[in-house]
Amino acid sequence: MVENDTNVVWHEHSVSRDMREARHGHKGCVIWLTGLSGSGKSTVANTLDHMLHNEGCQTVVLDGDNVRHGLNAGPAMLKDRHGEDFASRFGLGFSAIDREENIRRIGAVAELFAQTGIIALTAFISPYRADRDKVRQALNEGEFIEVFVDAPIEVCEQRDPKGLYKKARAGEIKGFTGIDDPYEEPVSPELVLSAATKTPDVLAGEIISYLKSQGIIPA
Amino acid sequence: MVENDTNVVWHEHSVSRDMREARHGHKGCVIWLTGLSGSGKSTVANTLDHMLHNEGCQTVVLDGDNVRHGLNAGPAMLKDRHGEDFASRFGLGFSAIDREENIRRIGAVAELFAQTGIIALTAFISPYRADRDKVRQALNEGEFIEVFVDAPIEVCEQRDPKGLYKKARAGEIKGFTGIDDPYEEPVSPELVLSAATKTPDVLAGEIISYLKSQGIIPA
Repeated sequence: MVENDTNVVWHEHSVSRDMREARHGHKGCVIWLTGLSGSGKSTVANTLDHMLHNEGCQTVVLDGDNVRHGLNAGPAMLKDRHGEDFASRFGLGFSAIDREENIRRIGAVAELFAQTGIIALTAFISPYRADRDKVRQALNEGEFIEVFVDAPIEVCEQRDPKGLYKKARAGEIKGFTGIDDPYEEPVSPELVLSAATKTPDVLAGEIISYLKSQGIIPA
Repeated sequence: MVENDTNVVWHEHSVSRDMREARHGHKGCVIWLTGLSGSGKSTVANTLDHMLHNEGCQTVVLDGDNVRHGLNAGPAMLKDRHGEDFASRFGLGFSAIDREENIRRIGAVAELFAQTGIIALTAFISPYRADRDKVRQALNEGEFIEVFVDAPIEVCEQRDPKGLYKKARAGEIKGFTGIDDPYEEPVSPELVLSAATKTPDVLAGEIISYLKSQGIIPA
């Protein structure tokens, strides 16, 4: 041991990802749900969250509710606390580049949770293939599980839980995915869920089976 | 139960913060370490992380290593994957407004961890009082624990673990906190740690005592 009379000796301790995953009894990963508004992403995410929690897993759900009010707030929300210049520079809108940054940040946060040994469930339309692929590229192999929540737009529009399709058809919302902005289906997602015909419990169960098959949670 | 022949019935399950905290046996919170470069923030954070993990707590450490390479990447890092325009719009530099956004995002992510019932430890210089106060304002009462890692600049400069003071004195780094940019000490932090004279173990122990006194972890 080197003696040093001016400084205390600084031992570095740290808790590794392996140590956290060993404690949890499962691996961390990102389950990325993508699909049209009304396809059932949030419902599947919350159902899966509940099931995994009951199996003793560590989970988090990232969705518009907890991200758009904080991390990815728009200019209007940032203005009061941070001022006009700050809000216009950093507030996220709905242009293509803003959507890209929205998805990038969500991916980065989901990765932080995965690195902490947590199963991060994300529920965002995330309509652009390139944006999702960039999240995949930023993560480790096998850590990004893309799940296409597949329901025909007719079904989503009939459900219309937030009345958004109605507004988009009336021209009150511009650039709405599936109406006047494209949804680009995943080319080779890890899973495709038939969200028009199966219940959330069944769909969540399909994801759990996948996680078991990959050794992410115990079989 | 309402029958509906066109849609499946969507039950909403969700896992509340209370349920997660009950599982963990402690509350979620943000322990915000602030202080000069070389004061020992990272060492204290990692030591505390290790101690809390050994006590069975769920924790995460957010620091420059895991945030500056992803969520808060600078223009150079974003350019390859996202292109020039994207990088210049969203990459974070070191101007006052960029530092403010850096701290805001870290606060928002730490909050997501706290909402998941996790003890989030952040280790950033975070030199501006107003920026730290905005993070505090965004969180629930009692959830933001500001810890001033207090060491005289002479001690920090002598330690200079990354050789940054040397570079700042040589004019190779501009706007370096404590040299040619201010460090604004907290006015009423939850804790002040005497980081020049005590060991990391002792300092981390002081934070643990505080967490116990506040009922955040079991006494």
